[in-house]
Amino acid sequence: MPGDKPRRIVALCGGVGGAKLAYGLAHALPPHDLTVIVNTGDDFDHFGLRICPDVDTVMYTLSGNDNRDTGWGRAAESWSVMDEVGRLSGETWFKLGDRDLALHLLRRQLLDSGERLTRVTQELAVRLGVQSAVLPMSDDPVRTIVETADGDLAFQEYFVRGRCEPKMTGFRFEGAVQAAPSREVEDALSHAGLRGIVICPSNPYVSIGPMLAIEGIRERLERASVPVLAVSPIVAGRAIKGPAAKMMAELGGPVSALHVARLYGKLIDGMLVDEQDRTLLGERHDEDPKLFVAHTVMRTPEDRVALASECLRLLEELR
Amino acid sequence: MPGDKPRRIVALCGGVGGAKLAYGLAHALPPHDLTVIVNTGDDFDHFGLRICPDVDTVMYTLSGNDNRDTGWGRAAESWSVMDEVGRLSGETWFKLGDRDLALHLLRRQLLDSGERLTRVTQELAVRLGVQSAVLPMSDDPVRTIVETADGDLAFQEYFVRGRCEPKMTGFRFEGAVQAAPSREVEDALSHAGLRGIVICPSNPYVSIGPMLAIEGIRERLERASVPVLAVSPIVAGRAIKGPAAKMMAELGGPVSALHVARLYGKLIDGMLVDEQDRTLLGERHDEDPKLFVAHTVMRTPEDRVALASECLRLLEELR
Repeated sequence: MPGDKPRRIVALCGGVGGAKLAYGLAHALPPHDLTVIVNTGDDFDHFGLRICPDVDTVMYTLSGNDNRDTGWGRAAESWSVMDEVGRLSGETWFKLGDRDLALHLLRRQLLDSGERLTRVTQELAVRLGVQSAVLPMSDDPVRTIVETADGDLAFQEYFVRGRCEPKMTGFRFEGAVQAAPSREVEDALSHAGLRGIVICPSNPYVSIGPMLAIEGIRERLERASVPVLAVSPIVAGRAIKGPAAKMMAELGGPVSALHVARLYGKLIDGMLVDEQDRTLLGERHDEDPKLFVAHTVMRTPEDRVALASECLRLLEELR
Repeated sequence: MPGDKPRRIVALCGGVGGAKLAYGLAHALPPHDLTVIVNTGDDFDHFGLRICPDVDTVMYTLSGNDNRDTGWGRAAESWSVMDEVGRLSGETWFKLGDRDLALHLLRRQLLDSGERLTRVTQELAVRLGVQSAVLPMSDDPVRTIVETADGDLAFQEYFVRGRCEPKMTGFRFEGAVQAAPSREVEDALSHAGLRGIVICPSNPYVSIGPMLAIEGIRERLERASVPVLAVSPIVAGRAIKGPAAKMMAELGGPVSALHVARLYGKLIDGMLVDEQDRTLLGERHDEDPKLFVAHTVMRTPEDRVALASECLRLLEELR
């Protein structure tokens, strides 16, 4: 029976780049077979609302509500509230669109009712029309602090307000030691029907890093009996989006997909790098994770599905 | 010196009707000579935001931002957020416009910073361009509960969600016994420059009632050395707006301006009733407050200023 075959895929994911591959996986698989575990280290409270940038990016992308013009936020967005906040001399550095705000209002109300973030996210995902499971990495607060030459910055202060300009000297994840994966995350990572785990092309430091800083997640990856495949967010020495390359340079590492593979090390069974980085195959050492090559740059929805299909093929190969 | 003459006026005020007279007073006086003390018994938390319907109506009206088409909310309002909340199956019974929401976001942020509601309101009023002082009646929470045949209802549940349809059997003001007027309210009511106090044509039960339920406010009115003049919200047996007449009937009282005067009793030195209620002068008993007659229905901004000027004239007469 096909039902006896492990069918489930878990993807670990940050924001935009990771969400694109999650979208591809949700279309290359029956969507219910996909569970996306999402970074919450970027979450913060603003105007009393809980903003979960990565979770929302994943939900918007999976439901087709992502804004492909801006690369962030919701499609068909308007800005009436933020415009008025500006007129009233309020803070406008973090752009909250009107439709996006509606989701934050509902999240606040659901959280205030006593629900865990995981349950709240499941509820919001259903309302948005997401068919795959989207799980915050933890119900416990973990907050990414970027250590910079200008001092410690909460992630959004660094990323949005500071436009990633301050030189990074390090980072830490407050609360990660105390944080536990949710029951739903534990179940997903130890499910009998699990076929493989994909680490999406997200920032290894501040998108995937917070998840790996949670012992209960890191251990499950280390002990996983299924293959773990990462897709490099670095292509030809540059990040497709976001500050991954800048961070990598500032932290003294070479800016390369192979360096990302080495950051993950024994946690992964293989790393998929872009065609443009084919020469890395020659630089790989025996102790490094296996490297595979494909077109990894996702410009169109078809690119997303093609990359997802290649990931699924490689996971079978690695089994 | 003119500065030696008491110049200040305090108005006690609920929502729309009261705000109109407050607007008139702010234009009949130098606006800085007016302090409006506003009911907060209607305040409630919704989507994690603090909504202060009466305070906001007063601020919007005094700053010319009131919506004269709907009679509530902001001018030039749009509904992008609420529309999306509705699409996401959220609660839309309390209509929060986009521009209105901006104010609630700022209020939440200022309250979360630890400021008292009074200071937050002063800050928001300045940003909106209000020149008079707008003071919440207390920084302590007071919540109006409407007791109905359908059970106890929080005020907005009765007023907005229930459209005032449930039969009222009584009301109470949770927290009023513990609540103190703010320092600013105390100062306004005992200011050496105070010339008189106006009770605006607001619902005597659920707009003015919560203020009178706070001992520190009621006592200051009882002891006031300046005249207290009320303007009737009931004209020709009907309320200009809102459920005052319906409540009055359900509570067994005759629906008349004289009945409102008797509800206030010794707290006031006089009550201004509408021309249409001139016959009440013949029904007045000796122990009732004095009655005065004027055109009290405010259809235009000029009506508001004219009524305010008449109130100021009567306060002088009552001194």
